[in-house]
Amino acid sequence: MSLAVFSTSWLIRPTNSFSVIAMPSFTVFKGNKQGKPQKATTERPDKLEGDQVIVRVTASGLCGTDIHYKTQDMALGHEGAGVVEAVGPKVSELKVGDRVGWGYQHGSCGQCEQCLTGWETFCAKRQMYGYANLDQGSFATKGVWNESFLFKIPDGISDTDAAPLQCGGATVFNALQGVVPGEVVGIMGVGGLGHLAIQFASKMGCRVVVLSSSDRKKEEATKLGAHEFVATKDVDELKVSYPINRLLVTASAQPNWAQIIPILAPRAKIFPLSVDSGDFKIPYMPLILSGFTVQGSLVAARAVHRRMLDFAALHHISPVTEIFQMTEEGVNEAIDRLEKGDITYRAVLVNN
Amino acid sequence: MSLAVFSTSWLIRPTNSFSVIAMPSFTVFKGNKQGKPQKATTERPDKLEGDQVIVRVTASGLCGTDIHYKTQDMALGHEGAGVVEAVGPKVSELKVGDRVGWGYQHGSCGQCEQCLTGWETFCAKRQMYGYANLDQGSFATKGVWNESFLFKIPDGISDTDAAPLQCGGATVFNALQGVVPGEVVGIMGVGGLGHLAIQFASKMGCRVVVLSSSDRKKEEATKLGAHEFVATKDVDELKVSYPINRLLVTASAQPNWAQIIPILAPRAKIFPLSVDSGDFKIPYMPLILSGFTVQGSLVAARAVHRRMLDFAALHHISPVTEIFQMTEEGVNEAIDRLEKGDITYRAVLVNN
Repeated sequence: MSLAVFSTSWLIRPTNSFSVIAMPSFTVFKGNKQGKPQKATTERPDKLEGDQVIVRVTASGLCGTDIHYKTQDMALGHEGAGVVEAVGPKVSELKVGDRVGWGYQHGSCGQCEQCLTGWETFCAKRQMYGYANLDQGSFATKGVWNESFLFKIPDGISDTDAAPLQCGGATVFNALQGVVPGEVVGIMGVGGLGHLAIQFASKMGCRVVVLSSSDRKKEEATKLGAHEFVATKDVDELKVSYPINRLLVTASAQPNWAQIIPILAPRAKIFPLSVDSGDFKIPYMPLILSGFTVQGSLVAARAVHRRMLDFAALHHISPVTEIFQMTEEGVNEAIDRLEKGDITYRAVLVNN
Repeated sequence: MSLAVFSTSWLIRPTNSFSVIAMPSFTVFKGNKQGKPQKATTERPDKLEGDQVIVRVTASGLCGTDIHYKTQDMALGHEGAGVVEAVGPKVSELKVGDRVGWGYQHGSCGQCEQCLTGWETFCAKRQMYGYANLDQGSFATKGVWNESFLFKIPDGISDTDAAPLQCGGATVFNALQGVVPGEVVGIMGVGGLGHLAIQFASKMGCRVVVLSSSDRKKEEATKLGAHEFVATKDVDELKVSYPINRLLVTASAQPNWAQIIPILAPRAKIFPLSVDSGDFKIPYMPLILSGFTVQGSLVAARAVHRRMLDFAALHHISPVTEIFQMTEEGVNEAIDRLEKGDITYRAVLVNN
């Protein structure tokens, strides 16, 4: 651990003690009421404690949830990749120079039933993006995180590729847990999540059916591993070669069930993976009579997250990225483009 | 097999052949446009074929679904119990005199993936109450069924107790598959299904929390095995000692989620078991953020149905029944009472 690796930007700020202390700080990009993220600074702790780690951010993915929080006074970004720059006294596995990533979750209690059974994503005290560590984000030059929620990036995955895997990749990989090779997996929506889901499901040996509004992304989806592509817009009756056993809904709107239910297999599992402020709705009697499962699903817990990274490295699964600079201009440009639905398929912000 | 055990009621009916044949027949009770079931007759096959079995009905439960079909021109009743009266040439397990029950499903293709994996309840060619064998019902003196969908009634379960287990019991037992002893099971609604669910869950070693509108059924629920009873009407914030891991919704209305979600554990499984003509609705973000599962679930497939009967016999699980006569008057009286919510807890029609 060396001072040389600390941020060179410093902020003099008053404290409520009797002296004014010069604290090292680093850049973050924060949301604001105008929804136009701005550069800000976060203090570097005077001394790292416990399993704290300073990560120098190299790349960050931009996820739909970031847009949701762009009007909040908080550091944005939750698909981080970078290099360990300093470690606290209780850090046991990571060392300076290690490449690491982190995602939506930053901590959990470690004591509850959920934590004890590998489901810390549902810990009541989970520290999640938008609720905890609001001065830290992956739209930043650095970040202070706990070792226990950092993930080593396997060799063979670049930082810009690793970043979108930390939330987008983890979310779709999690929804594919328990899948049986050969299972028919429907991926609804070809975007940040969908284009990763196609690759994961395909490499898991599934039959991948992509549902998208138009034929526009058919060629790309096929290259990513889709076996079948179904354009849904203005089509009354969809046709698939095999009924779908598992449906990952990554599109922003809820499915038109009248159109989708006829192509689902009995006991199909439905994973709504996008965000909606209202109710989840599905016709009641088909749900019962076909024994469908609707499965609420978040990002992966850590054990699954690790396997996701290893799986991606093994099978050369890479997000398709567009690179932006980690500057106020770059952050806002990427957000504008994502809001217009104009990113193919994941924006990644990089620190040069 | 002896003619002496055939029905003594005969119907002379014309056929489209050149002769008029006298066929033995038996009594069924059919729905009609007025929703006032009437006595009718169903022909006994001239000769039993394959694995056909004639069952002399001794008792039938009355289920909510029967009310749904009371306006249809079909023989009613799908919670049957009786005695084997005659068997076809391919019947291999059952013999005359065996006590048997049957439920919602009467047949399936036996060839599809669902059938081959023990999920014949989701076979595309399943023969279900309301859709197949409309001339047969358990509101009857007899019925012609296939051996493969008849269930031996274990010693120690009476016919009147066995009848409501064939649908009500099978439905709640099925929704309890995979339960872990000690799991917190919420039973919403104490009626035909709920009062059986309490008993099954309790004997499975679960912590049983009953949710009912008022305290009226608290004492009975406790006797049936409930560990905790929560009255929900006009209560803003429900209190439970332990959050609920699995919720069986047997009440006729969908839950008030604002009231229920706070008492569900992370990753709770929700089983909607009643009927609704609209959409199933649940707040979207809690579904995702708490990782809830909404599980569409029907009656049990046969392997599970058999275990249900054995489990009920082992643990002396008995429906609480009110007995009515298997007559036009009795059928209509039982239906009227059920529609008024005035049955404690399962009406059973009996042939004397």
